[in-house]
Amino acid sequence: MLKTISVRTSRRMETVDITELIQEEVSRSGIDEGICICYVPHTTAGIIINEGADPAVCEDILDKLEQVIPRRGSYKHLEGNADSHIKSAIVGSSVTVIIERGRLLLGTWQKIFFCEFDGPRTRKVYVKLIKG
Amino acid sequence: MLKTISVRTSRRMETVDITELIQEEVSRSGIDEGICICYVPHTTAGIIINEGADPAVCEDILDKLEQVIPRRGSYKHLEGNADSHIKSAIVGSSVTVIIERGRLLLGTWQKIFFCEFDGPRTRKVYVKLIKG
Amino acid sequence: MLKTISVRTSRRMETVDITELIQEEVSRSGIDEGICICYVPHTTAGIIINEGADPAVCEDILDKLEQVIPRRGSYKHLEGNADSHIKSAIVGSSVTVIIERGRLLLGTWQKIFFCEFDGPRTRKVYVKLIKG
Repeated sequence: MLKTISVRTSRRMETVDITELIQEEVSRSGIDEGICICYVPHTTAGIIINEGADPAVCEDILDKLEQVIPRRGSYKHLEGNADSHIKSAIVGSSVTVIIERGRLLLGTWQKIFFCEFDGPRTRKVYVKLIKG
Repeated sequence: MLKTISVRTSRRMETVDITELIQEEVSRSGIDEGICICYVPHTTAGIIINEGADPAVCEDILDKLEQVIPRRGSYKHLEGNADSHIKSAIVGSSVTVIIERGRLLLGTWQKIFFCEFDGPRTRKVYVKLIKG
Repeated sequence: MLKTISVRTSRRMETVDITELIQEEVSRSGIDEGICICYVPHTTAGIIINEGADPAVCEDILDKLEQVIPRRGSYKHLEGNADSHIKSAIVGSSVTVIIERGRLLLGTWQKIFFCEFDGPRTRKVYVKLIKG
């Protein structure tokens, strides 16, 4: 089963907790056991799993990415978002989560975050569910 | 099929070769062909695939992560493990390995390593097997 | 279904667009819907998904990796390719792509790139297709 989630971002760099949107698709599918692939079809965005309880955690992640891969730098790609592409490549385009008893099998503190690196924009995340 | 592996770590940062533990679950399952998702349900740990022959390789990986994302730094998350969360986000929460003829289809030098970034602790790794 | 793709690299660090080679395997398989795992069985190479339209994007990605993880550095692994292992661990060994209507469901600008970090060599990429 394939679904598409829409994510509206409001800053150049931002993380958006999409855990509940993905869980809704899993619930609607009726799949009890399997895997869920969350895939970002963009080259200046990414997706991670990390702590959601303290928003400072995601801010630290974005701050460190910006420190190591700054927006202003000596890049060959001249559209002003070379850093966004590099951040996207490092973070990755997808995460895979296990489905158990109809629920995403996340750890206690884990949430799924869409990572915007060149916003604000309206973005998509594909959610693919495989039974098994 | 879903199994849980337990990993005991003994230092703050450490890699633990869990290849054999995962292969045992694959063997027990009787699955000949498919994929194996190894998933870490923690936000201050991760999982990688890399060389196992020379332990210096994993030490270099941890040293570089510590150099770029040092424990002591200017972070907003105030629990003393902001660096561990960032390392976890960069390294990633899961790896996917192909199963062929009942074996993990790893390269000659590849091993699967649990990455502890905020130990010592007792940790879990979920092993999900999909036939196909 | 499992297939192996061969990739010949010509420099120490290089990205090679393997999107079409992987699409050919998907087409040949006759699978309409499912997922495609592209797996690199090497410890000094990796695989990413990013922009293919402007080659400068991949050059920027490689330049940044070399800047943060330089070839010459203070490493414990003494074979002269410690940096290649670290780059491989950070970038990752596999990508997962959704298959829809017999095609890789990539974003408009996305291509799949094999990442050579210790070439030139002849390398392999495993392509595993799962229906569902």
